[in-house]
Amino acid sequence: MRLITAEQLDDIAMGAAVLGTGGGGDPYIGKLMAKAAIERNRPVTLLDPSELNDDDLVIPSAMMGAPTVMLEKIPRGTEIVTAFESIQEYLGRKATATMSCEAGGLNSTTPFVVAAELGIPLVDADMMGRAYPELQMCTPTLYGITATPMAIADEKGNSAILNTISNRWTETFARTVTVDMGCSAMIALFSMSGKQVKEACVLRTITKVEQIGQTIREAHRQHQDPIEAVRAVTGGFVVWQGKIADVARRTETGFARGDASIAGLGVYEGKSLRISFQNEFLIARTDDETIVSTPDLITILDAETGEPITTETLRYGFRVVVLGIPCDPRWRSPQGLALVGPAYFGYDAEYVPVEERFR
Amino acid sequence: MRLITAEQLDDIAMGAAVLGTGGGGDPYIGKLMAKAAIERNRPVTLLDPSELNDDDLVIPSAMMGAPTVMLEKIPRGTEIVTAFESIQEYLGRKATATMSCEAGGLNSTTPFVVAAELGIPLVDADMMGRAYPELQMCTPTLYGITATPMAIADEKGNSAILNTISNRWTETFARTVTVDMGCSAMIALFSMSGKQVKEACVLRTITKVEQIGQTIREAHRQHQDPIEAVRAVTGGFVVWQGKIADVARRTETGFARGDASIAGLGVYEGKSLRISFQNEFLIARTDDETIVSTPDLITILDAETGEPITTETLRYGFRVVVLGIPCDPRWRSPQGLALVGPAYFGYDAEYVPVEERFR
Repeated sequence: MRLITAEQLDDIAMGAAVLGTGGGGDPYIGKLMAKAAIERNRPVTLLDPSELNDDDLVIPSAMMGAPTVMLEKIPRGTEIVTAFESIQEYLGRKATATMSCEAGGLNSTTPFVVAAELGIPLVDADMMGRAYPELQMCTPTLYGITATPMAIADEKGNSAILNTISNRWTETFARTVTVDMGCSAMIALFSMSGKQVKEACVLRTITKVEQIGQTIREAHRQHQDPIEAVRAVTGGFVVWQGKIADVARRTETGFARGDASIAGLGVYEGKSLRISFQNEFLIARTDDETIVSTPDLITILDAETGEPITTETLRYGFRVVVLGIPCDPRWRSPQGLALVGPAYFGYDAEYVPVEERFR
Repeated sequence: MRLITAEQLDDIAMGAAVLGTGGGGDPYIGKLMAKAAIERNRPVTLLDPSELNDDDLVIPSAMMGAPTVMLEKIPRGTEIVTAFESIQEYLGRKATATMSCEAGGLNSTTPFVVAAELGIPLVDADMMGRAYPELQMCTPTLYGITATPMAIADEKGNSAILNTISNRWTETFARTVTVDMGCSAMIALFSMSGKQVKEACVLRTITKVEQIGQTIREAHRQHQDPIEAVRAVTGGFVVWQGKIADVARRTETGFARGDASIAGLGVYEGKSLRISFQNEFLIARTDDETIVSTPDLITILDAETGEPITTETLRYGFRVVVLGIPCDPRWRSPQGLALVGPAYFGYDAEYVPVEERFR
């Protein structure tokens, strides 16, 4: 158990953008929301998963929608508390703690708003070890844990409680309601016992993203190579370097979809890498082969600063380095790959762990 | 207070198809569901609104979706009970009775399923005095009564509770969830006190549709003119007679939309009437003028039998008589016309009460 103050959120948001693999929403907005909530209320207690009792009630909270829209339609800040309180009311029980759904982007910091506003701790864990575009794509799904009852709320005051027969159906309903709400909404879902969190979630990922953020900050301060620092702290591999040659994006069915082409530089000169995204970067391919694919993490870093670049800030001309980072091993099981492997997203590619290609 | 047995549902369903103005879903399916529920359980007690205590809780129940789809995707029958029970559980209170949302089509009989299964009475009233395609189009909306909390459930076992800031928002969310559920769903909404029902609803419309059904049946038995019998019992006007020349229909955004052209016969020979529908018949126009429009009722009867024809059974060659029937007077207020007048549905026509054109 330790306290997280507003200052520490800079490192957390920076590290979350690395594991956000381009998506999960702009960490800057999540950070501002979380900082404001902490300053208005109190620091947030970060609870190590080992400190949870087996019968504690943990309710993760998050923002749902298209990151492109979130950039312009900024949350009011109270709707995530509305969603959280309405699920507590529905369950007839107060939560011991909240938790992040994703270790990536906006949603590693949005639950700090709930924790600060309601004075409850945040568990040092998440349900992906990265960011993913659909809400059934959580390790608890692999353990048969249901996403519902789920609460969803918008900034106008509308809300709903969903109860579904599968987490895939939860995604379907929540997605169309999110679109109706204006392509962004606040959610509380995957209520779990302390025992379930310890077994089914990806543990200590808030501490991990904080370390990644610290590493980038330290590398800047000490004039070290930030790319190498990020690579080392994440256990990742440099899989490409080059210049952004083209970005095609569209917002459809509530997602930010598109492709980025990166003209190779250095050892990659004369070749081009195409990275496809659906909120997150999902697959990186040259003309000949797949270089990295989901469930492993694809992160684009600014070649100069080592800072991560999100799908919505990607621009022509950026000089970048692409990292491939091994995912949580549970994503590599047959069940994990069925849920988040390349085939699920419609890519005709066999998954090969990134360390087998780049060791 | 009186008992409704399975036999009486034939008349009720027939009369409901007259006030259904072509929509509200096929009354045949609603009748079969209600008959089966009554035979499985018990007759349903029909409660006169005057028998309600002011603080009784009444929860209307209905089916939502595109009638064209309901013809093929027949409800399992239990999902309407699921929706009803989940709203009771959410409110933490048992309902005294259920009620029909519409006096038209499927939804005048679907609440009999809830009443028979749960052994609660049905109030002799509805919220429209006809059928309408969107759920905010209810007289309680004119009294500021909110549609939410609303429950929605499908035959697969999915359900949701909605809480919205306006009844128009309820329609928006419920419609997209209905589309996700496969274009048909069961709902429970507009929870009201007995006092609100007596003030804000259209009273004794179950008895009214039963009388209309009886009248058609009696006219057949006594070889009287069924058209004149329906006209007399509804207080309507014969506004057209002819032959269906064309029907264009499409299922979009969860609705059955389209137009029917009726080539005139008799005094209407040489002219053509075009009736536009969105689940219900909404406006009847010749080349020159609007003959009848919403909120007044437009009903197409088989010229031979006097039986009503729904939008989805409308076929080329049918010989028909079109009735215009005055609506509940509250629909003619400025607030009523804003909610259900021709302009709301996108028709450039000024509303003129049908009796002013045809008296």
